[in-house]
Amino acid sequence: MASVEIPKTYKAAVYDKPGSISTKIEMLETPEPGPGQVLINLTHSGVCHSDIGVMMNSWAALPFPTQAGQVGGHEGVGKIVKMGPGTESAAVKVGDRVGIKWISAICDSCPACLAGHDGICFNQKVSGYYTPGTFQQYVLGPASYVTPIPDGLDSASAAPMLCAGVTTYAALRRSGAESGQWVVILGAGGGLGHLAVQLSAHAMAHRVIGIDASSKRDLVLSSGASHFIPLETTPSIPEAVKELTGGLGAHAVLVLTANNAAYATSLDLLRFGGRVVCVGIPEGEPVPIKSALPQFIVAKALSVVGVAVGDRREAIEVLEFAARGVVKTHFRIEKMEKLTEVFQEMFEGKLQGRVVLELS
Amino acid sequence: MASVEIPKTYKAAVYDKPGSISTKIEMLETPEPGPGQVLINLTHSGVCHSDIGVMMNSWAALPFPTQAGQVGGHEGVGKIVKMGPGTESAAVKVGDRVGIKWISAICDSCPACLAGHDGICFNQKVSGYYTPGTFQQYVLGPASYVTPIPDGLDSASAAPMLCAGVTTYAALRRSGAESGQWVVILGAGGGLGHLAVQLSAHAMAHRVIGIDASSKRDLVLSSGASHFIPLETTPSIPEAVKELTGGLGAHAVLVLTANNAAYATSLDLLRFGGRVVCVGIPEGEPVPIKSALPQFIVAKALSVVGVAVGDRREAIEVLEFAARGVVKTHFRIEKMEKLTEVFQEMFEGKLQGRVVLELS
Amino acid sequence: MASVEIPKTYKAAVYDKPGSISTKIEMLETPEPGPGQVLINLTHSGVCHSDIGVMMNSWAALPFPTQAGQVGGHEGVGKIVKMGPGTESAAVKVGDRVGIKWISAICDSCPACLAGHDGICFNQKVSGYYTPGTFQQYVLGPASYVTPIPDGLDSASAAPMLCAGVTTYAALRRSGAESGQWVVILGAGGGLGHLAVQLSAHAMAHRVIGIDASSKRDLVLSSGASHFIPLETTPSIPEAVKELTGGLGAHAVLVLTANNAAYATSLDLLRFGGRVVCVGIPEGEPVPIKSALPQFIVAKALSVVGVAVGDRREAIEVLEFAARGVVKTHFRIEKMEKLTEVFQEMFEGKLQGRVVLELS
Amino acid sequence: MASVEIPKTYKAAVYDKPGSISTKIEMLETPEPGPGQVLINLTHSGVCHSDIGVMMNSWAALPFPTQAGQVGGHEGVGKIVKMGPGTESAAVKVGDRVGIKWISAICDSCPACLAGHDGICFNQKVSGYYTPGTFQQYVLGPASYVTPIPDGLDSASAAPMLCAGVTTYAALRRSGAESGQWVVILGAGGGLGHLAVQLSAHAMAHRVIGIDASSKRDLVLSSGASHFIPLETTPSIPEAVKELTGGLGAHAVLVLTANNAAYATSLDLLRFGGRVVCVGIPEGEPVPIKSALPQFIVAKALSVVGVAVGDRREAIEVLEFAARGVVKTHFRIEKMEKLTEVFQEMFEGKLQGRVVLELS
Repeated sequence: MASVEIPKTYKAAVYDKPGSISTKIEMLETPEPGPGQVLINLTHSGVCHSDIGVMMNSWAALPFPTQAGQVGGHEGVGKIVKMGPGTESAAVKVGDRVGIKWISAICDSCPACLAGHDGICFNQKVSGYYTPGTFQQYVLGPASYVTPIPDGLDSASAAPMLCAGVTTYAALRRSGAESGQWVVILGAGGGLGHLAVQLSAHAMAHRVIGIDASSKRDLVLSSGASHFIPLETTPSIPEAVKELTGGLGAHAVLVLTANNAAYATSLDLLRFGGRVVCVGIPEGEPVPIKSALPQFIVAKALSVVGVAVGDRREAIEVLEFAARGVVKTHFRIEKMEKLTEVFQEMFEGKLQGRVVLELS
Repeated sequence: MASVEIPKTYKAAVYDKPGSISTKIEMLETPEPGPGQVLINLTHSGVCHSDIGVMMNSWAALPFPTQAGQVGGHEGVGKIVKMGPGTESAAVKVGDRVGIKWISAICDSCPACLAGHDGICFNQKVSGYYTPGTFQQYVLGPASYVTPIPDGLDSASAAPMLCAGVTTYAALRRSGAESGQWVVILGAGGGLGHLAVQLSAHAMAHRVIGIDASSKRDLVLSSGASHFIPLETTPSIPEAVKELTGGLGAHAVLVLTANNAAYATSLDLLRFGGRVVCVGIPEGEPVPIKSALPQFIVAKALSVVGVAVGDRREAIEVLEFAARGVVKTHFRIEKMEKLTEVFQEMFEGKLQGRVVLELS
Repeated sequence: MASVEIPKTYKAAVYDKPGSISTKIEMLETPEPGPGQVLINLTHSGVCHSDIGVMMNSWAALPFPTQAGQVGGHEGVGKIVKMGPGTESAAVKVGDRVGIKWISAICDSCPACLAGHDGICFNQKVSGYYTPGTFQQYVLGPASYVTPIPDGLDSASAAPMLCAGVTTYAALRRSGAESGQWVVILGAGGGLGHLAVQLSAHAMAHRVIGIDASSKRDLVLSSGASHFIPLETTPSIPEAVKELTGGLGAHAVLVLTANNAAYATSLDLLRFGGRVVCVGIPEGEPVPIKSALPQFIVAKALSVVGVAVGDRREAIEVLEFAARGVVKTHFRIEKMEKLTEVFQEMFEGKLQGRVVLELS
Repeated sequence: MASVEIPKTYKAAVYDKPGSISTKIEMLETPEPGPGQVLINLTHSGVCHSDIGVMMNSWAALPFPTQAGQVGGHEGVGKIVKMGPGTESAAVKVGDRVGIKWISAICDSCPACLAGHDGICFNQKVSGYYTPGTFQQYVLGPASYVTPIPDGLDSASAAPMLCAGVTTYAALRRSGAESGQWVVILGAGGGLGHLAVQLSAHAMAHRVIGIDASSKRDLVLSSGASHFIPLETTPSIPEAVKELTGGLGAHAVLVLTANNAAYATSLDLLRFGGRVVCVGIPEGEPVPIKSALPQFIVAKALSVVGVAVGDRREAIEVLEFAARGVVKTHFRIEKMEKLTEVFQEMFEGKLQGRVVLELS
């Protein structure tokens, strides 16, 4: 491998005024990879709604306020340019393309990690929140935890898969739905939803019923759903689902919307033995799932499970599906310098699809 | 097989005034086994709290009022005395001891049956509710669905296992807890609870924490629990569970009490990836499980599942454990004629352990 | 339901000289459905290689010689015309289209049935071998075990799915391969193989590598395989599989050929943790699987599993996939009277695709 | 934590003449822990038959000859005395007792590691073979991969659990046998066997049938087996197993003996749907498992699986069972200087139980 020239300093977009929509380009010093780490020259980073939550300190789930100077972002792709000490047996090497996701590092030692649940590692580091994120040209990551990007998937396309793709893929795996079974997706036309529909229909061969506002009909159906149920004009969603599923209801329901009303309906859409997968996190005061009634759960042998973010293996798997063209995300590319405008657009709900920043 | 003499009429205890605590001994005509059926000469029947619910029409889960003349009971054991037509290839034959449980017959054709969930058969027949039950000397049952009683388990001991035993066994299997893992049992000293503790500790090699009123301490510990947490004197049940489980919480929680407060705490007792199994059915207006918050379920990757009654296979398995002496129930034997008094005693909460009726 | 006229006698093709290729049309008396049975007016029956084995007594797996007068066939489809006693709660009714498969009846009571393995019921009845089969216009079947044919799947197309379709579907389910994983199919261009490829690729979203004689290339690739490996011109099949699977080998291998040489290679095609599924039954003296070496199985944590025929639920599921057009079989239709010629053609290896008899 | 004094040099027992039974005590320089590593002051190491195979170059499974100067041993227990760089978030710290097992380090990056099969890591380091082992006073290990020793388990008792305990525990988990099911253990009285019997009977609540030479009867039965079958005096092992299991055979069979004859019988001991777990590795030319006949595997839906060594999580779990007293190994303690004599005794087959070296 020819040596790669690494600059002393590089450009990063930092949150200069956490609590408001504001980022600033700064020059930072290129760090040295520590033990077990690699240094990555990032070329692309997706921009996700969660980044706004972090930047604006508006997300109740985060325990501490974001600090000024934080580099955000958690969907980064680039090339390894330097290996730290103790990385001799790592699967990646200088020149490999790799990704950084929401959970950028794990302890690999806590009970959750040992149980194979690295997505809920007790000592996880979150990219773009108390750990420098991916809105910058260089970033550090653990050699054993960065996600290899498969050949045949361009870096811009890979970026959004590292967050929405992994999460929905993990949720579908945890749904327990077998191929040929019915999966209902609540919020099927959203950022998570349109990926979930594609993955469910094409990567897992489920039969998909997408539910969302009627404006999303075309997106949902073209993503692979067998049926679309519009929220506004359907008198009874449970009845509509039953009618489409031979009178029985679905085998699994994914709740992707951050919405207590969606949860309230969710169990009513299931057949006996069915499963609701919780993904979306409603804002505000937590509210119990209204349909989670012991009587009902017992009588129909239902289940409710939660999925936070996918784990390392699921990230690799969903990227393979993306590389094969089974799932695609819609995005436009913007320069790093446009980040504040992009956030503004997202905050105002004007953004169609996603944005991927070009970091070079 | 020597032929067995079958009387023309026999004794049955019927609900003569549904809605109140009242039973009457009547003589009924012995029925002929229909296609696929066997005629059983019952010798014992357990008496269960659910029978009171049926007799008194006090159980909201039952869709129709009980009719006068109904023979109750759903924990019956006896000997097959006659085989109906079409039972040539059945696994049971005249002379075999078999049991009748809550679900006395299934259709073996509905989606639930085909999926192996015979406990929630869409066309199930419930023994002692719109189907003649086990408080009588003769009863019909399907040759392929009666439960063979293993040698080495006396009939009186087998009877209560057919309801409480099967249900708790099914709940423990559905808990997903592996041997060596921590299982919390809410209502550990009750009729279901003391069986669940024995099965969990001895039949599945779990580590059991029993929770109940402090008066139940000895029963729970002698049933095999590693630890007992008294409800009245424990400031924080979740803290107490965490302390006993290395700070993490339990792998599984069984809610056996018909109590919304128990459900409200249940998820708080779990570690990451843990599972609550719903068994008890609270009376009155259904109330959502208070700790079933999407935020919490997602963050810790929890799950909640329901179990109604066990299926055929689980009935056979739990009886094998009983035959090996791994699990025992405490009961006293009463004559069939005492049924009304027994119900009265149960209704007033004075009954210790269970009652098994001798039907001869 | 208007009543259906049922003739006193009907046409059947019987094996008049078991041991040789010979069938004769005879008129038989229409039977009455017994307890739990239905009478079916068959319109179509597939013709399968196993029928030849039964007719010619050439199949070592069958314990007893076939008797003269046996009605063969085990892929029958028709309409229920009469319900026997004790079928009131059955899921099927007069007028429903249903199918008869290799295992036409089970005891629903033996340990295998209770464990949910009805495909290996200890008391199974085999259609067309000691139980009248489907080369006839009327046949009896158990109300709870005949396979409902979904609307939208014509009867001729349904017939072959009841044998080859169910078997390969069951094998794929038992392979444990998840969607997106690599499945190698040995004998990918055969009667079982071309269905297995379709089901694996389209119904389960696997990535399929088909292996067969080079003449089968087009059939295998058009059935959905990602890659085809020709047997004659490939120096090393294991090397070829490794090259296609990133150097690791496949997650699962299905051996559909009745061929010891195929088994001998099978484990060599697996990656660590991979699984061989045995389906094909070689003729002659049983030979141990040559690659089933403890050293190798241990070092790579491999597994080998067997699948006989699918169970009831798998039959229903694979027919649903067929009704949705996900899997199709190639067949031509012949009159019942042509059965001997069809057998002759199959025996001489001249038959392309399958034959379905029209029984009307 | 008070600082610990670490000597410059320490005692190690090295293989001075690989190929023969010979070890020599040498003084070695204490190494510095590298990135991600910890330095452990070992107090105890078990001595295992595999060590002889390594020392004598007699084990065909090892790809390269052992080098003179190799420190052997792979069942080490001691205290961490120093943490290397990059171990800040590790679950262990200076002062913790930890263990080193056969696989002392993994890459955490290869496909096997990512799939959760760290026991077959492609880049595994084997303690005592090309990686300095545990017959020495100080050893390095990865902070995230050393096995924490639970309180309440003394270090000498912990040592043998790190090899035989983990392997048999992993094999039992992979057997798929549920509590209450029948497990046959071939080689039940051996070093692996007597632990497997204890774990199967007490940690997993299986019903155990132990098979071995008749001299082992007492050990096997006192370890928890329900039945013992002596090899020499039993005319037909399969018949004997069937008789004890209601005529059906066992749910699972563990082959712990390194013996082709044991494998040859193994599948014959299974019931329908049963599973053979391969553990023992016969010496000499690999021989196919004689009972692994496709016809038989298919007809009874059997399976055969391999298990090499357990993974990290299984090591932690089996040590917890040991700490609770559920499983115990018999051993005597010897000084480090006696290692050559111990090996001699093992080689001559005179050793009863195991030896644990005291390294202080």
